Amino acid sequence: AMSTASAARTLTIGLIPADGIGREVIPAARRVLEALPGAVMPARLRFVDLDAGFEHFQKHGVALPEETLAALKSDCDGALFGAVSSPSHKVAGYSSPIVGLRKQMDLYANVRPVVSGAAATASGERRAIDMLIIRENTECLYVKQEEQHDGPGGKYAVAKRVISERASRRAGEMAFAMALQRDAMRRQLPEAERAWKGRPKVTVVHKSNVLSVTDGLWRETVRGVHAGNAAYASGVDVEEQLVDSMVYRMFREPEAFDVVVAPNMYGDIISDGAAALVGSLGLVPSANVGDSFVVGEPVHGSAPDIAGRNIANPIAAIRSAAMLLERLGGDAAALAIYRAVDKVLADGRALTPDLGGAATTTDVTDAVCAQL
Amino acid sequence: AMSTASAARTLTIGLIPADGIGREVIPAARRVLEALPGAVMPARLRFVDLDAGFEHFQKHGVALPEETLAALKSDCDGALFGAVSSPSHKVAGYSSPIVGLRKQMDLYANVRPVVSGAAATASGERRAIDMLIIRENTECLYVKQEEQHDGPGGKYAVAKRVISERASRRAGEMAFAMALQRDAMRRQLPEAERAWKGRPKVTVVHKSNVLSVTDGLWRETVRGVHAGNAAYASGVDVEEQLVDSMVYRMFREPEAFDVVVAPNMYGDIISDGAAALVGSLGLVPSANVGDSFVVGEPVHGSAPDIAGRNIANPIAAIRSAAMLLERLGGDAAALAIYRAVDKVLADGRALTPDLGGAATTTDVTDAVCAQL
Ligand SMILES: CC(C)[C@H](C(=O)O)[C@@H](O)C(=O)O
Ligand SMILES: CC(C)[C@H](C(=O)O)[C@@H](O)C(=O)O
Repeated sequence: AMSTASAARTLTIGLIPADGIGREVIPAARRVLEALPGAVMPARLRFVDLDAGFEHFQKHGVALPEETLAALKSDCDGALFGAVSSPSHKVAGYSSPIVGLRKQMDLYANVRPVVSGAAATASGERRAIDMLIIRENTECLYVKQEEQHDGPGGKYAVAKRVISERASRRAGEMAFAMALQRDAMRRQLPEAERAWKGRPKVTVVHKSNVLSVTDGLWRETVRGVHAGNAAYASGVDVEEQLVDSMVYRMFREPEAFDVVVAPNMYGDIISDGAAALVGSLGLVPSANVGDSFVVGEPVHGSAPDIAGRNIANPIAAIRSAAMLLERLGGDAAALAIYRAVDKVLADGRALTPDLGGAATTTDVTDAVCAQL
Repeated sequence: AMSTASAARTLTIGLIPADGIGREVIPAARRVLEALPGAVMPARLRFVDLDAGFEHFQKHGVALPEETLAALKSDCDGALFGAVSSPSHKVAGYSSPIVGLRKQMDLYANVRPVVSGAAATASGERRAIDMLIIRENTECLYVKQEEQHDGPGGKYAVAKRVISERASRRAGEMAFAMALQRDAMRRQLPEAERAWKGRPKVTVVHKSNVLSVTDGLWRETVRGVHAGNAAYASGVDVEEQLVDSMVYRMFREPEAFDVVVAPNMYGDIISDGAAALVGSLGLVPSANVGDSFVVGEPVHGSAPDIAGRNIANPIAAIRSAAMLLERLGGDAAALAIYRAVDKVLADGRALTPDLGGAATTTDVTDAVCAQL
């Protein structure tokens, strides 16, 4: 259960490295958490190692073991997840453990901050970007209700895309609440340091020109959250953007977005696109958030091509650990991590190859720990 | 019906400007077609003006009139479509006319070439891009089978995503055939002028780590087309790319792609993203292609914010007209248009505001005509 911070308490964090570079970046994030000075800690941290992943499936026939779910539910205050590999062919009985985890733990929003002082735009200019993507995390095409049939013209398959009022409302709530919260935090900064200078804004992504019923329900529900709350209605601007144009605009004018809220699949695609803008998927963290649990997870995948070589960028995982702490009441600890990472990036000496450097995962982790 | 070229014949082209800037760029494309010198023409051209669009729906209650479909089927050899506006709220009885047209005329592939000598990447470098996107054009979420229900937890809506072996096979066929055709054309160029220097390659986009049944069928069918044809199997490389990583990679290394084949919705999103790389949606043409009909269509939308001001970029529509001619046997005429457009772009004096210029739609059209 979500904890209110208290220095006397212990927070138990489940660690699920899963596949590929997940096994390198999750231990790196753990090292950073362990290096945090006591003064900023909301509680003592305890770690529990947990299994999941495609490799686990190959060995034991299950990708998300019952024991892992049970341990998360009974013992843990939150968790960190690494990355999962995808089978290169259809594998009977396999189902993505991260998708299962989100659903089983009711982690209904995936919160993905994409921030850079100098994002490269498609016009060749560098601009500030400070965008928060809220991705609905439990439904859309991710309900995995699919069937294959034999028809007169050959095989055909049908997947269901489910959009509910309830899930749309929860994602919308999160988006508008975050927009106000970000605004409050920005007001504490001098004007010159604020990447986003306007009124708080939520961009609602959809494709209702084609999906008038499902995306129609999504858009109306999210707009309803805005209209139905006086603080949102008066304090937050709302705009809509078709998903194809969203990807286009994001690359032309990334500085035009504050909070972006999207159904699951669009959110998946948009966040990888946004990661390209800030230089590397290896920088972008996320938090899978529910009312009573949170799982930090780097946006990148398991990167089998570089796994096991100690060259994966640990920053996305380290920032995900900070997002986890933030939601567990550890604002000061989270801030210490964000600042340490920013210093390492600005310094530029300890960068992994994805950022053009030659440092190892260990080097970057050492550098972050040294800045704490 | 598709025509084999003959100077004695007449080709009848349906013109469907539809909404917004469609009404400016389609007349511009017509002017260019009319300015083509007789020597390059495959036939005399005749034009038929046809109605469709959201504005037509608002006036007459129908977005894609039966008369338009009948005229296309009985009188026309091909058509040019402008752009459609999207209603800002759900409108009973309205359904996108371009989606309807694709399905009614069985235009099963949407062919979208994205070419630039200096595409802006997310790393801030400029690189050559010469990518051909083949978008499946009739199914996926575009079947528009949606329902809304009242459940115990509130309203929910379900859309069907249909992937058939037949449509996947046709899209795959088109992709591999085009890969070989592009390779043959490139071999006629000096090595230094070829943006793509490797073996022909087809990138198959999917999300089978989540949609193992529908995208599983898609991927296996497209791979089957490759394996089942000796010329494809020996002459074309094939790789797979998850849609989220595809958007990421496209922005990091656009030069890594030759032909890209994608289910309908992913193809829609990817092609807008690719358009951002080459500087403007106003540059990217497409052809909706079937076995017996073809409709040229700029990738951009109706852009209500700039409609009626004579500042829309006509180049996407002009290039779409060239793609149309190409498929109607008018290779020489198409080449003349492509070259004229390239000269106008390289010259840089007649550019619309989306490209940083101050020229009008008319200016750009005049400039292209002058280069023919
Ligand atoms: C691994 C995959 C199922 C997952 C997703 O699509 O959600 C990943 O891409 C992500 O973004 O976390
Ligand atoms: C207008 C819309 C229905 C259409 C689509 O999604 O296909 C457009 O975005 C396109 O790419 O041609």
